[in-house]
Amino acid sequence: MAVNLVAPEHLLSVPGTRWAIGEAAIKKPGRNDLALLVLDEKATVAGVFTQNVFAAAPVQIARAHLGQAPRALLINSGNANAGTGKTGEQHALACCEAVAQTLGIRAEQVLPFSTGVIGQALPIDRMLPVIEQFGAVLDDDAWLDAARAIMTTDTVAKGASRAVDIGDGERIVLTGIAKGSGMICPNMATMLGFIATDAAIPQADLQAALAAANQASFNSITVDGDTSTNDACMACATGVGPALSADHPGWPMFVVALTDLARELACAIVRDGEGATKFIELSVTGAASEDEARAVAFTVAHSPLVKTACFAGDPNWGRILAAVGRAPVTDLVIDGVSIALDDVAIVTDGQPRSDYLEADAAAVMAKPEFTIHIGLSPDQRRGEHAARIWTSDLSYEYVRINAEYRS
Amino acid sequence: MAVNLVAPEHLLSVPGTRWAIGEAAIKKPGRNDLALLVLDEKATVAGVFTQNVFAAAPVQIARAHLGQAPRALLINSGNANAGTGKTGEQHALACCEAVAQTLGIRAEQVLPFSTGVIGQALPIDRMLPVIEQFGAVLDDDAWLDAARAIMTTDTVAKGASRAVDIGDGERIVLTGIAKGSGMICPNMATMLGFIATDAAIPQADLQAALAAANQASFNSITVDGDTSTNDACMACATGVGPALSADHPGWPMFVVALTDLARELACAIVRDGEGATKFIELSVTGAASEDEARAVAFTVAHSPLVKTACFAGDPNWGRILAAVGRAPVTDLVIDGVSIALDDVAIVTDGQPRSDYLEADAAAVMAKPEFTIHIGLSPDQRRGEHAARIWTSDLSYEYVRINAEYRS
Repeated sequence: MAVNLVAPEHLLSVPGTRWAIGEAAIKKPGRNDLALLVLDEKATVAGVFTQNVFAAAPVQIARAHLGQAPRALLINSGNANAGTGKTGEQHALACCEAVAQTLGIRAEQVLPFSTGVIGQALPIDRMLPVIEQFGAVLDDDAWLDAARAIMTTDTVAKGASRAVDIGDGERIVLTGIAKGSGMICPNMATMLGFIATDAAIPQADLQAALAAANQASFNSITVDGDTSTNDACMACATGVGPALSADHPGWPMFVVALTDLARELACAIVRDGEGATKFIELSVTGAASEDEARAVAFTVAHSPLVKTACFAGDPNWGRILAAVGRAPVTDLVIDGVSIALDDVAIVTDGQPRSDYLEADAAAVMAKPEFTIHIGLSPDQRRGEHAARIWTSDLSYEYVRINAEYRS
Repeated sequence: MAVNLVAPEHLLSVPGTRWAIGEAAIKKPGRNDLALLVLDEKATVAGVFTQNVFAAAPVQIARAHLGQAPRALLINSGNANAGTGKTGEQHALACCEAVAQTLGIRAEQVLPFSTGVIGQALPIDRMLPVIEQFGAVLDDDAWLDAARAIMTTDTVAKGASRAVDIGDGERIVLTGIAKGSGMICPNMATMLGFIATDAAIPQADLQAALAAANQASFNSITVDGDTSTNDACMACATGVGPALSADHPGWPMFVVALTDLARELACAIVRDGEGATKFIELSVTGAASEDEARAVAFTVAHSPLVKTACFAGDPNWGRILAAVGRAPVTDLVIDGVSIALDDVAIVTDGQPRSDYLEADAAAVMAKPEFTIHIGLSPDQRRGEHAARIWTSDLSYEYVRINAEYRS
């Protein structure tokens, strides 16, 4: 069902990174569901995490270990280790300890990540023996295998690479993978995203670059409005390549490449959104602030009436207008509002246009990808702020997936 | 598909009210789609209206006319007259003028209400001739016909009556009707609700009673989280019966009966929610404020993951926990949170209970009606505030209805 999305055929390997991949039959046997990313000892790591109050045990531990010179990231699919209380915390720490043993590092240098069903204990007895062998099977070139191992309801493996020229003949590599399909409305990051570069970057600069990239990518998508307990997006700079920092002339190129890569991964999650048949951009302009523009965009993107109209390809723009009207925005004046689908203008100055033909809008919505443009004040009377976010539609298949999940 | 809901067989007539019902083929021919409620000249009228910024033209006019000694309420289904700009306003005023003519009253004494598709002009040429005949066909006992005439995607006509003894051998009658099935998350009222009593009640007291009843009924339901542009709930006291006011000993009986009746109508809307197969109560306790309790309840009720789990009868309580965790509430501590389905306790003190059996919870969710209990601090550490709201599930049928609506 994914919208205009195919799995990458290959991902660039990143000097200073190695992967071990294994099968622990966490949810069911027959697939890889454990992946370990090992970083060079010079590496710096930045992270953004879910703002769900009930952050899962692994998220809390990863956040705590981030300042402990991280060397390894352990990711399992099939079980989120969330809502599991003290037992969950003990299990996540036991996994860190096993990684530390096999790699000869400290347990505090290991960041754990989990994704899958909430509220069930990790099958730790099946996982630890697999982890204990990981030190012996590290591979320089296994990013695509890792992308497959971290999938849950994803139908397509998600990854992307960039090679960036940062000047003076120096080149760095960025590769990232992500997973996610449902419970997608990241308030800090996506379900799980892992990006690495071989550049040597001070941690504070890397964190700032990740935060900026994240806001324009993972924090700008929604499938179902449900913020996961396990969201995390990590950026690793292994340090075996060229040195780079915020005052380097090549820094803007890196930030643009990181943002662009993060957005490609985030949009891949929406394209593979549960039951998605459409990939929809919400573009809001003329807002008093970016927060306001985003609030309007997310209100429209979360409206089940707008989402089902997108599924049907029905230009029922009244539903868009009604959603804008209930967005948490003060003093919005209808006379300033405009609505368009791609280049088909429907509402201008709060009034339906006399030249609007429904067939034109229906033709736009028949496409697998289109943009809903919402202007809050075309003459900038209200402000000049804007936002772009991406979402999917609400289909029968969405209901089927979520009614049958776990069964 | 409605959950445990049958149309009333009869509704009590209310002295001082008369109805005219007619067919104007507003959306399509073959059904009554216009209803006029005429009130005794002694009547007082109270109203609550949508807080959607883009309130439809009729809502804006009804709000403006409320202070003009209202004598008549005109309701049409099949077209919301919303998003229709200046033309919509002219059409609504023309309807008021036609009612004024046929009844011999002022146009400012007429309150217009519309429900149906957004963004299309009213077929005013078909409506005005029907309205012009209404003065000649007024009926003392047609509340049930009116309930049918105002339906849109409703599958069951909604109405309820109460006879209330207010002391000293005096008795008053309350009858109310409502419509609504989709775009239901009233921020001030339901899609449309009309309640009348024969008591004589000062307008300010009636408004206060309606506001309180509304908060515990129409403002406590959600089907899809989409707040309509046309919501309104009106209470009319015709004044031909006993006198009643806030300082009367019988006042609490009236307020309880009004609230109870409004809740029955509101829950009827949820039971008939688009595609509903379950009727779900969300009960939140241990909150720091009522607003906080309601915010948690609505966040869970709007979660498509929780709603699809309810459809499937799957006690996937991790989805409930995740929704509570992303609710707009500050400083929530997981250690205080409890979750139960009816009398089956699942989570206590933030931990899954060791005695929890999934089969018990599955048996609860197999029923057409159940309650999700969420405690934010069972020991009242956080507070003693609580809230109850009602919602429906998210089914294939919901998607079908909203993907095919208009076609």
